[in-house]
Amino acid sequence: MSIVTFGEVMMRLSPPGVERFAQTDTLTMHFGGTEANVAVSLAQFGLSATHVTRFPDHALGRAASGYLRRYGVQTQHVRHGDGRMGLYFLETGAGSRASQIVYDRIDSAFARIRPGEVDWEHILQGSPGAPVRWFHWTGITPALSQGAADCLLDGIQTANRLGIPVSGDIVYRSNLWQYGRTPQEIMPALTEGCTLILGGKALFSEIYGVVGSTFIEAGRAMIDRFPRLRYVTDTKRTSISASHNQLSAKLFDGEQVYKSRVYTMQPIVDRIGTGDAYMAGLIYGLLEFNDSQRAVEFGAAASALKHTIPGDVNLATVAEVETLANGDESGRLKR
Amino acid sequence: MSIVTFGEVMMRLSPPGVERFAQTDTLTMHFGGTEANVAVSLAQFGLSATHVTRFPDHALGRAASGYLRRYGVQTQHVRHGDGRMGLYFLETGAGSRASQIVYDRIDSAFARIRPGEVDWEHILQGSPGAPVRWFHWTGITPALSQGAADCLLDGIQTANRLGIPVSGDIVYRSNLWQYGRTPQEIMPALTEGCTLILGGKALFSEIYGVVGSTFIEAGRAMIDRFPRLRYVTDTKRTSISASHNQLSAKLFDGEQVYKSRVYTMQPIVDRIGTGDAYMAGLIYGLLEFNDSQRAVEFGAAASALKHTIPGDVNLATVAEVETLANGDESGRLKR
Amino acid sequence: MSIVTFGEVMMRLSPPGVERFAQTDTLTMHFGGTEANVAVSLAQFGLSATHVTRFPDHALGRAASGYLRRYGVQTQHVRHGDGRMGLYFLETGAGSRASQIVYDRIDSAFARIRPGEVDWEHILQGSPGAPVRWFHWTGITPALSQGAADCLLDGIQTANRLGIPVSGDIVYRSNLWQYGRTPQEIMPALTEGCTLILGGKALFSEIYGVVGSTFIEAGRAMIDRFPRLRYVTDTKRTSISASHNQLSAKLFDGEQVYKSRVYTMQPIVDRIGTGDAYMAGLIYGLLEFNDSQRAVEFGAAASALKHTIPGDVNLATVAEVETLANGDESGRLKR
Amino acid sequence: MSIVTFGEVMMRLSPPGVERFAQTDTLTMHFGGTEANVAVSLAQFGLSATHVTRFPDHALGRAASGYLRRYGVQTQHVRHGDGRMGLYFLETGAGSRASQIVYDRIDSAFARIRPGEVDWEHILQGSPGAPVRWFHWTGITPALSQGAADCLLDGIQTANRLGIPVSGDIVYRSNLWQYGRTPQEIMPALTEGCTLILGGKALFSEIYGVVGSTFIEAGRAMIDRFPRLRYVTDTKRTSISASHNQLSAKLFDGEQVYKSRVYTMQPIVDRIGTGDAYMAGLIYGLLEFNDSQRAVEFGAAASALKHTIPGDVNLATVAEVETLANGDESGRLKR
Amino acid sequence: MSIVTFGEVMMRLSPPGVERFAQTDTLTMHFGGTEANVAVSLAQFGLSATHVTRFPDHALGRAASGYLRRYGVQTQHVRHGDGRMGLYFLETGAGSRASQIVYDRIDSAFARIRPGEVDWEHILQGSPGAPVRWFHWTGITPALSQGAADCLLDGIQTANRLGIPVSGDIVYRSNLWQYGRTPQEIMPALTEGCTLILGGKALFSEIYGVVGSTFIEAGRAMIDRFPRLRYVTDTKRTSISASHNQLSAKLFDGEQVYKSRVYTMQPIVDRIGTGDAYMAGLIYGLLEFNDSQRAVEFGAAASALKHTIPGDVNLATVAEVETLANGDESGRLKR
Amino acid sequence: MSIVTFGEVMMRLSPPGVERFAQTDTLTMHFGGTEANVAVSLAQFGLSATHVTRFPDHALGRAASGYLRRYGVQTQHVRHGDGRMGLYFLETGAGSRASQIVYDRIDSAFARIRPGEVDWEHILQGSPGAPVRWFHWTGITPALSQGAADCLLDGIQTANRLGIPVSGDIVYRSNLWQYGRTPQEIMPALTEGCTLILGGKALFSEIYGVVGSTFIEAGRAMIDRFPRLRYVTDTKRTSISASHNQLSAKLFDGEQVYKSRVYTMQPIVDRIGTGDAYMAGLIYGLLEFNDSQRAVEFGAAASALKHTIPGDVNLATVAEVETLANGDESGRLKR
Repeated sequence: MSIVTFGEVMMRLSPPGVERFAQTDTLTMHFGGTEANVAVSLAQFGLSATHVTRFPDHALGRAASGYLRRYGVQTQHVRHGDGRMGLYFLETGAGSRASQIVYDRIDSAFARIRPGEVDWEHILQGSPGAPVRWFHWTGITPALSQGAADCLLDGIQTANRLGIPVSGDIVYRSNLWQYGRTPQEIMPALTEGCTLILGGKALFSEIYGVVGSTFIEAGRAMIDRFPRLRYVTDTKRTSISASHNQLSAKLFDGEQVYKSRVYTMQPIVDRIGTGDAYMAGLIYGLLEFNDSQRAVEFGAAASALKHTIPGDVNLATVAEVETLANGDESGRLKR
Repeated sequence: MSIVTFGEVMMRLSPPGVERFAQTDTLTMHFGGTEANVAVSLAQFGLSATHVTRFPDHALGRAASGYLRRYGVQTQHVRHGDGRMGLYFLETGAGSRASQIVYDRIDSAFARIRPGEVDWEHILQGSPGAPVRWFHWTGITPALSQGAADCLLDGIQTANRLGIPVSGDIVYRSNLWQYGRTPQEIMPALTEGCTLILGGKALFSEIYGVVGSTFIEAGRAMIDRFPRLRYVTDTKRTSISASHNQLSAKLFDGEQVYKSRVYTMQPIVDRIGTGDAYMAGLIYGLLEFNDSQRAVEFGAAASALKHTIPGDVNLATVAEVETLANGDESGRLKR
Repeated sequence: MSIVTFGEVMMRLSPPGVERFAQTDTLTMHFGGTEANVAVSLAQFGLSATHVTRFPDHALGRAASGYLRRYGVQTQHVRHGDGRMGLYFLETGAGSRASQIVYDRIDSAFARIRPGEVDWEHILQGSPGAPVRWFHWTGITPALSQGAADCLLDGIQTANRLGIPVSGDIVYRSNLWQYGRTPQEIMPALTEGCTLILGGKALFSEIYGVVGSTFIEAGRAMIDRFPRLRYVTDTKRTSISASHNQLSAKLFDGEQVYKSRVYTMQPIVDRIGTGDAYMAGLIYGLLEFNDSQRAVEFGAAASALKHTIPGDVNLATVAEVETLANGDESGRLKR
Repeated sequence: MSIVTFGEVMMRLSPPGVERFAQTDTLTMHFGGTEANVAVSLAQFGLSATHVTRFPDHALGRAASGYLRRYGVQTQHVRHGDGRMGLYFLETGAGSRASQIVYDRIDSAFARIRPGEVDWEHILQGSPGAPVRWFHWTGITPALSQGAADCLLDGIQTANRLGIPVSGDIVYRSNLWQYGRTPQEIMPALTEGCTLILGGKALFSEIYGVVGSTFIEAGRAMIDRFPRLRYVTDTKRTSISASHNQLSAKLFDGEQVYKSRVYTMQPIVDRIGTGDAYMAGLIYGLLEFNDSQRAVEFGAAASALKHTIPGDVNLATVAEVETLANGDESGRLKR
Repeated sequence: MSIVTFGEVMMRLSPPGVERFAQTDTLTMHFGGTEANVAVSLAQFGLSATHVTRFPDHALGRAASGYLRRYGVQTQHVRHGDGRMGLYFLETGAGSRASQIVYDRIDSAFARIRPGEVDWEHILQGSPGAPVRWFHWTGITPALSQGAADCLLDGIQTANRLGIPVSGDIVYRSNLWQYGRTPQEIMPALTEGCTLILGGKALFSEIYGVVGSTFIEAGRAMIDRFPRLRYVTDTKRTSISASHNQLSAKLFDGEQVYKSRVYTMQPIVDRIGTGDAYMAGLIYGLLEFNDSQRAVEFGAAASALKHTIPGDVNLATVAEVETLANGDESGRLKR
Repeated sequence: MSIVTFGEVMMRLSPPGVERFAQTDTLTMHFGGTEANVAVSLAQFGLSATHVTRFPDHALGRAASGYLRRYGVQTQHVRHGDGRMGLYFLETGAGSRASQIVYDRIDSAFARIRPGEVDWEHILQGSPGAPVRWFHWTGITPALSQGAADCLLDGIQTANRLGIPVSGDIVYRSNLWQYGRTPQEIMPALTEGCTLILGGKALFSEIYGVVGSTFIEAGRAMIDRFPRLRYVTDTKRTSISASHNQLSAKLFDGEQVYKSRVYTMQPIVDRIGTGDAYMAGLIYGLLEFNDSQRAVEFGAAASALKHTIPGDVNLATVAEVETLANGDESGRLKR
């Protein structure tokens, strides 16, 4: 069973530990992107995961591909071409000091992608032994360029045609969307193709004009509006400090809402990619468990574990997630 | 607007993380000194800050100057000459294990300073665009040598003559004061020149024989004793463990006492220089806000943030301090 | 005064900080073994400590000996010969993610030890200025090979003959014991020689068939069964997360039970070797204090402090342990 | 076009730089094995490369797979099972101090491989778009266990059946071959299947009893003895110091001998895997160039470049190798 | 005495030692730019050096300023604004493997500079105690954007008006110059203002159409063409390998040519910025020595020393350069 | 067989690799001292070595003792007391840039030693199994303080009384000798007790007024002047660059001169302690070989190998030294 994700992967550069840029001479290099993070998680869970993206055709692009492969993601459909490597600079906080990100992704090789470059038909058919069972995208991609938005729409529609479920993380970053279109113009067509979306009522209202006074009401309105849509999900985070958070998740299937337990994360090793870890856990749960309650719990536990792992990607195994999802937070040494 | 500080800067050597000296082969090198720490903080806040000190005339002295400049402090008035680089060795603790310091500062280049070496008149006049608006010293300096005490007195009196406000941190370390004089003999003349002092009632009694049963009473007695004195301030720390402290501050202006909120620091990344961060924050607040309550809150928040930053010096920005001073301890990621 | 310990020492390899093996290119190298950890602790407390083991006769064996000597343990009775260096791979967890160990110790140079190789008579007599006052072993050693079990029995019996007190940590790891014998066959003869054992009622029942419904009852039954036995001790750990534990200890002398306070460890820097740190603290207390209450408190405080120290071995000093045993958990900076 | 390699991959642990084990607390972790090194090189050159091996089913085995994937090698045919991770410990020398290796590979997961475990028919057929065009093995594999030797023979015979060329590096390490068979018994049947072998006249005489007074004579005698054999190749190294070597290669095709230029390597960054880099370069040349002289030159240049790259595997690109093979040793900065 | 330089400063990111991007997880961060490198060198030689540039108004820009200040360069005239931090990625080679650079400087904050932003009149007047005595630029700056070219011309003309000597490094990188103008259009007006230029006859011909069959002839033709020009200089590098180069320099004053000795650099620690180190050394020599032969020798020795120093900037002192310029290449330990 | 050495041990702090103090934030910590370096070398060669010194009674002193023990030196006779840890700061050069040392050893715990503190009689008798067979000192010790000189004289005279051979390295550093005495006053009495000295004719003339126009003549004159003296030895170094030296040694026994081969060291990893490595090799050779030619060759080869080892101390083994002394400089990999 195989899943496909599509989106930009950036080089992430951060000072060691909790140092600041002004005081360090060494940077730790990771790679990450919200969709690729989902792919890595699912590869760690044992699924076949393929990420589709576009990298510059030089040493940094090759390093990025190697990073994805190291963590089990297949890169044979990665495109290489002109344009920069997208970058982001992360300063990790602690206690009352927040983490901070400086993005530097303008005009990246990914943003220059053109629809014709990706042969979605071929990719989404998968291989004989590993048919594609899921396609995942997020609201970052259509915010980057018209080419990226078009290419994504092409992918979603191909998936729809092939009967592959599609999930979308309806994230909205207002400082992106620089190429002349608005999310209100672009997102609805993309959301049309989705089986599952991650988002909350404020977002539904802002982007789609879909209004509901509660998560359930707003979710039901979205399901009404988008006929393919079967699931709406969201997470809730309480931030006590940069080192101490709580997290829970809920999943609405049009009829019933399933809620996870509340997880405590203390200390927080790395906050980045924890939403993607939830998404990956939920997708895994929906594909493997046939039990919505268990799926949302698995997703929330996966997200909680990601907080203990350096980098953007969740390297937790199914066994580790299940231990936590089953309520064992003791962290007892395993020999 | 420019401020001037005066005092020894030491090389600080510590094992990485929470390792002990007995088990490490690598040391992290910082530089710090209670007065220079104040200068760095104020430079980070955007003021022009000049530190006056004396370094040995070799590679280590040049490295120390470079460290101060990197963090925005001007070093054109640093003297270079004979004598050693003062050093301190820090082992950082965690949980129930305390941090420990071994000082090695005897006979440093700074301790060999002589009054004639520093042209206070020139330094404290500042430059046309950046007149000096504050001078800061601490009780460490007069404890090091007669020369340092004399040179400091010269500086304070020059500041007084030029109408520049002076702050003193009345810290007393009994294992210093090895050169034959006592703080009781030396400190009063220095305190004469102060507008603001940092200290508590035990210290006021021990050093000046000024007695009061509460902070307010003792503060009022100090203000009575020293005519220039307008503010007395102090911090209060509760130590739950080496990784978990609470801190608050208060400021008395002879009439009213202004108290900050109580800040929780967990985890503590680096405890050193947190008092200096308070002092810098308070000075900044008094210079910029014309609001004593806001100034003491800004100082306490600055000190709380310093606990999250490796090294002696506070690299927090005004925006970060204000976020915390305004009550947002959530440490939420800033994109 | 001198103590002797006997057992395998392994090279411990772990990713830096809380990284996972899948994501690191660098490993931190320590050495440790439950009995040698006790020796290092006692050497840090100022006793003369000698560890007896067997290392491969190549660069890794020499590095291991050097590690023990660095921390004050004497290695003149270490044997060198054929066989591998025993290894273990440790992934350190945090929060809700547990630490994990992969052992790789099969067929180590230590497992190949033969009784004739160790001249116990000579070793346990010590030197004129430093007579041996204690011998310590654990249940790991007889689990490794018949040769190790025989050699240990020889050592215990020699100690008994020379009137040297013997302590045994009755740890049972079911995935060891691969050489064809069971702990039920081997352990009783070894326990015969003990003055003090560390273990709980479940273990006493499983290994010796000695039953008691409480720690005291089971301890009394053990003391009845083994005439040399004077003390039974155990620790109790509550695991809130991998970064937050609580620990207490109790000691039963056949008449009275002595309980330590409950210590909170947060954050936990390194969980490995904390039981050994307790054992070393207790042995030190029994040898030095002539006060069972103080001994068990010293042991528990030593164990608590070990949680703050990277590596298997406890590098806390007597003064640090006593500060904590006397109730000061504040971790206040020591200048 | 795709190539397949088969053999053990070990974790390689070495002190940073040129430190010795006795003085380091940190080890650098790489993975390598003579056959997998060839696969990585060919993947860097742009071919599709698949390595077949067997890893332990725990975190270290997963890390090893990730390492291969990072450098472009496909691992979908890697087996996981019982047994240890093979290890080797490398101390890198400099100048007059030689590098030293301690092997620790006994009873590895690979040595426990059984012929039935590998489905050679499936693997060597490759996929529609990427038919297998080469199979490579070395004399290390049959030296490890009967199972490894049997499994290898199965692979070679399958390749022969499918018409896939086979290369063998006839390396002989006398301290391996511990399982009761000799290379004289095992190697001839494996060599039967080869198109190309790497070795010299001393080895041909010792293992096969094939004698010749020169490389050409001995090579011709091997080609006479083994009907499939078309090429015999060897390298020649002059060791001026651990930091300064010279290297050349020659290839004999039964009629003519092709010699490379003599390459100077100074300084040498990492000597390990340089023979494998030659082999990979030669295979690439034979597959791509249809020009034996150019192929041997490409191989020798690839080997020379490997001396500048840390780790076992050659990360040089085709463009870099060609620059050097074309005679440009200037190392001029490329912007 | 003070000098002023103007140009872009980039963040330089490189793997540790001679690792490749594909194999590292850590990058070393330096900052550098050909003109700022000259400023740092001159600051190390004891002159007052001010660099004018434009940085993004976030943490990376502040880190870049701090880097310059650390090495003694004054940054009070640095502008902050929109645009990215220019970056370059450097992979350091060794032996026969060349170093490689990937530039990522498009649309940097510096490229967005506008002439009005820099108050050249104010900057080039210097301060009373430190009048400006030299202005330096290179051909990189006008290649970046029309704004940068205009701003530079403004600076050169202001320097001319104030009688400050100007030096220009006539470097030409054809992959820059993307904004629609050619060096043939832009460079002559800039060169008009120069007292000294660094370049060779090929460049003089290509950019200015000034032809000469030897360095002297071409230099004389340049001096004829540009009336302000008094000196033409160039270096000559022989590249034996990436770790072993030879370098010499020559200076022509319209009448006589002064040649330095030939310096051998082996090993080469860092090749970047060695041309800038020559320029700085030459400027220092011309300002301080009144002896052209000594100046060119000082420049060449400075450049040779730079090859031993990590980073873009030369941290050699005057004493070190003079030792080498005087012929002592022995590298004998100084206690 | 056991040897004893006496002298100061300093903490050595140096930037990583060839960085400069001005650019690093991390220091590598070693410990070393000319006499202790000899002890470590001899311990690596398998002899029992005891170093006598005096350390401050805090964490740094304990770390220093641990360092010596790690490398096999016995520290039971180390004294602990007041005074500082002696330090030195080393910047390692390369190519044409020389290494530089800043000493900071004034008023160290060692310099405060008093003769009564060391029980030479007890120490030099050794233990029953390990009688002392050699005592080594250098001219650094009497240069530090009157107490150190007195204590050393006491040690030499005790050794003489017990019939133990004594070697002295007659090194003269003019910037030491600050306590009011000259080497001309102090050294002769110390040299009286020597069997072997290391030094050259210039030194013999300057310190003892013993003149000879060649090494042999001057050596013979020294042997005439000091009746116990049997051997005079010296090394000769040619410094091509900081990375490339040549070294040879000679030994004169009053009748014949024995010369080693000339060793080439390229690259040089660490130059410090190479003279001490020679001394240790020579002492080992004289004690073990009964062959002066072989002894001087062993010493020179040991010194050559030390140039490849980071830190002050030589970690080469007897086998490694003999390989090189026997003429194998090839540095060929040892599996």
